Amino acid sequence: MIDALIDKIIKMQNPTCVGLDTDFSYLPADMREDISTFEGAAEKIIEFNMNIVDKVCDIVPAVKVQIAYYEMYGYEGLRAFDYTVNYARGRGMTVIADCKRNDIGSTASCYSKAYLGKVDIGGKTLKAFPADMLTVNGYLGSDGIKPFVEDIKANDKSIFVLVKTSNPSSGELQNLKLEDGSYLYEKMGDLVSGWGSDVVGKYGYSEVGAVVGATHPEEAARLRARMPHTFFLIPGYGAQGGSAEMLKVCFDKRGLGGIVNSSRGILCAYKKPEYSGMNYYDAARAACLDMQQDLLSAIGRIG
Amino acid sequence: MIDALIDKIIKMQNPTCVGLDTDFSYLPADMREDISTFEGAAEKIIEFNMNIVDKVCDIVPAVKVQIAYYEMYGYEGLRAFDYTVNYARGRGMTVIADCKRNDIGSTASCYSKAYLGKVDIGGKTLKAFPADMLTVNGYLGSDGIKPFVEDIKANDKSIFVLVKTSNPSSGELQNLKLEDGSYLYEKMGDLVSGWGSDVVGKYGYSEVGAVVGATHPEEAARLRARMPHTFFLIPGYGAQGGSAEMLKVCFDKRGLGGIVNSSRGILCAYKKPEYSGMNYYDAARAACLDMQQDLLSAIGRIG
Repeated sequence: MIDALIDKIIKMQNPTCVGLDTDFSYLPADMREDISTFEGAAEKIIEFNMNIVDKVCDIVPAVKVQIAYYEMYGYEGLRAFDYTVNYARGRGMTVIADCKRNDIGSTASCYSKAYLGKVDIGGKTLKAFPADMLTVNGYLGSDGIKPFVEDIKANDKSIFVLVKTSNPSSGELQNLKLEDGSYLYEKMGDLVSGWGSDVVGKYGYSEVGAVVGATHPEEAARLRARMPHTFFLIPGYGAQGGSAEMLKVCFDKRGLGGIVNSSRGILCAYKKPEYSGMNYYDAARAACLDMQQDLLSAIGRIG
Repeated sequence: MIDALIDKIIKMQNPTCVGLDTDFSYLPADMREDISTFEGAAEKIIEFNMNIVDKVCDIVPAVKVQIAYYEMYGYEGLRAFDYTVNYARGRGMTVIADCKRNDIGSTASCYSKAYLGKVDIGGKTLKAFPADMLTVNGYLGSDGIKPFVEDIKANDKSIFVLVKTSNPSSGELQNLKLEDGSYLYEKMGDLVSGWGSDVVGKYGYSEVGAVVGATHPEEAARLRARMPHTFFLIPGYGAQGGSAEMLKVCFDKRGLGGIVNSSRGILCAYKKPEYSGMNYYDAARAACLDMQQDLLSAIGRIG
């Protein structure tokens, strides 16, 4: 799946994904009118997401759907998550389910079935939330990752493991110094490299990727050097303070090596002065084009 | 909420919870007959869980509902999760949502709303999956934990943060040695102690607890000494290899300090020779009573 994503990134000259962290409050006021149930909110979120996807699917290769924003609306919210995942895939976009799941092996296997695999019930094969890629947390070590790697191989999927996250306090644990002088996030990076060493695709990047925040350029540069075969999912651009200049260290000489996410910067573009007078989906498209130009000016031509 | 749980543990003389990791395949064959949809499976899982809860709620203080086993059946599975959470609470049981959620602050706040808080839609206050307690992963540091602590205070809830997990590979990251000679899991323990320092209840235990596996007694003993005000959620008993002898180091002189989970050992007791001839819920009750005796023989009288 990583090869297919990189193919699209090169074709569109756009190493970005739109984060569908669709908080109900992000929707224009008229869409929120008279809604006071999870079911009603879920319907409107679906409508919003569909309009965003329709407007960006020819210029943006992927969406990242942050499941927390759907879970808070209960199982009706999860229905909207499911619909969104399927709709975006139907429009040709690569779908990254941002779930940061993690557990012991037997339980991780359930999560893997939910997002990357399939479930057998009474002889029938069913899929719960069929995404292309999934974010996971590696705190439990290799036996919590193995089930995902098996589904990667069986079903042509990818994962991104948290290595260095974009939030301000990420260093409290991730930047602890180990006995041998390396940092914890580097050790996590080494584990991730190992887990993905036998699923490297035609561009030299593995199906087992890493989450590396745009907000920590020093760590990102060290990780890029340390894990040359690991593709990065890069959050933190825009609203969180990461800039194109800061994150260009994540990319190789071909302009490959990562995909940059923006969520609020795209979904809420219509509230910004520079896109005033536009409806939310036209503003989202304009913001995507601006983000593309901003990144390409730092990274250069891709591929 | 931790005080209410400890009250029940003392009253019932039972420091255990039943793990409702209800894989559809765990159900007796006659309950699975002619079912081949997520909706059908979800209905039967609800029926199974209700019967288990009815049979154990007078002798077991809590259930731990592992959400991965519901996510793999899609949003229909999540409906069963929701129903189970509400049903068990209605029967007086403390409900631990085992979700191991984690993300940056703004997103962690959505997860917190989903399980411990509430959501406002159009002026109406709604709850998604209203549990009493939630498991979380602390890899992102304090700003990913803060939203949960706020909901703990606002709504009388608790969390358990992963410190030393029960799986075989947990040491790959958690037992790394740091520059100062301590282990990573100890450093995580220190963070957890700090996060919970101002929400300590009448028994001296905090609303911010820790997940500490029954399978690693040496680490559990070090953590018990290092974090005297932290209540432990203890997985790994039974099917994973943890014994009462191994996990008794988690408890203080009063017999307090932890709650031990068993999932498959209870749900699938009816398949074991020692409970043969019993239906699944009577076997579950018998297995709960046996587990209680086994633990009390190691821990002694509680309270």
